[in-house]
Amino acid sequence: MKLLSAHRAPNPRRVLMFIAEKGITGIEVSNIDLNAGAHRSPEFLAKSPLAKVPALELDDGRVLTETRAICTYLEGLYPEPNLMGLDATERAFIEMADRRVELTLMLQIANAIRHTHPGLVALEQPQFPDFGKSQAEKMLATATVLDQLLQQQEWMAGDRFTIADITAFCGLEFARGLMKFVPADAGLHALQGWRDRVNGRGSAQCH
Amino acid sequence: MKLLSAHRAPNPRRVLMFIAEKGITGIEVSNIDLNAGAHRSPEFLAKSPLAKVPALELDDGRVLTETRAICTYLEGLYPEPNLMGLDATERAFIEMADRRVELTLMLQIANAIRHTHPGLVALEQPQFPDFGKSQAEKMLATATVLDQLLQQQEWMAGDRFTIADITAFCGLEFARGLMKFVPADAGLHALQGWRDRVNGRGSAQCH
Repeated sequence: MKLLSAHRAPNPRRVLMFIAEKGITGIEVSNIDLNAGAHRSPEFLAKSPLAKVPALELDDGRVLTETRAICTYLEGLYPEPNLMGLDATERAFIEMADRRVELTLMLQIANAIRHTHPGLVALEQPQFPDFGKSQAEKMLATATVLDQLLQQQEWMAGDRFTIADITAFCGLEFARGLMKFVPADAGLHALQGWRDRVNGRGSAQCH
Repeated sequence: MKLLSAHRAPNPRRVLMFIAEKGITGIEVSNIDLNAGAHRSPEFLAKSPLAKVPALELDDGRVLTETRAICTYLEGLYPEPNLMGLDATERAFIEMADRRVELTLMLQIANAIRHTHPGLVALEQPQFPDFGKSQAEKMLATATVLDQLLQQQEWMAGDRFTIADITAFCGLEFARGLMKFVPADAGLHALQGWRDRVNGRGSAQCH
């Protein structure tokens, strides 16, 4: 298998962290240059029609895109350690936690950065800076809800580390890098403590 | 079980259609009034901390939110007809198709409507109309990619009806209602033909 990835992009990092948590070896990683527009080349679009990274080329030639779908596939091939749920009910509750952090926290961070950061001008056209600033404010509201959650439980989906922690961590670290957002500076100490727990894992160094 | 829903909202409709396709009976549906802000009441927030519909109250008192996670749970309880994949590999490819239509088409439609439509002023504050107009243009580009896909395959995920068709249909019908967007008018005849196939199913009448 071959993973089409990109340096510093948060979604490829989610898959790299997932692979590291599973201890999977042997997947070749090929980085493309988003700033040079490599994701819009005919060759790449033939593999990923919506011009997105990451994409996983399977050994039979099929290409799987969409971060979480790639993780679903890898979870099937490498069930241990379980990161997405042991049965349909647990899968549903972990998916809920994962979607909450992806479709709120991570999406708001992505919107805030893509619409305000000069470094993203090649990827987001047109940029709407006022919308981006508003999304940053909404991200802070979401982070506050997650901080309250983490005052009651150790991990995003409950009492064990799951894919939802990977999603939230990669989103927050992207915000730390480009928005200089640090939960502790915003008074969100439970969220910061959780971030530090995740950052202590070996998989957090994969990016 | 009890489904907390809202009239005319596209995400609750996805769950209602999923339930209808499965032929599940006995789930009570309770509609809340989004325009009156019922989703921000302390009672509702205790069930759905991010103020979102739909939410599924289980018989053991737990509450599951996030449309697709609710479907994962129901698919586990009612496996037939299968709508999300028979094994991990098929689950991954259907999830890819579902996420493509949700995180591009449906999200662009939602952004376009929420940021431009006066009827959504109570739900989206502040509105950024220029951003909304730009999202409508990007939605058309996504719809064009999907039209090309549907020239080669009958359904969004391949050769059978799946959850991805439900997601895309509910998104497009929301656009038809509030943006007056009709694929055929945009020359997207494969997409229109697919829409008409889905609309012919009994489940399409659930909303």
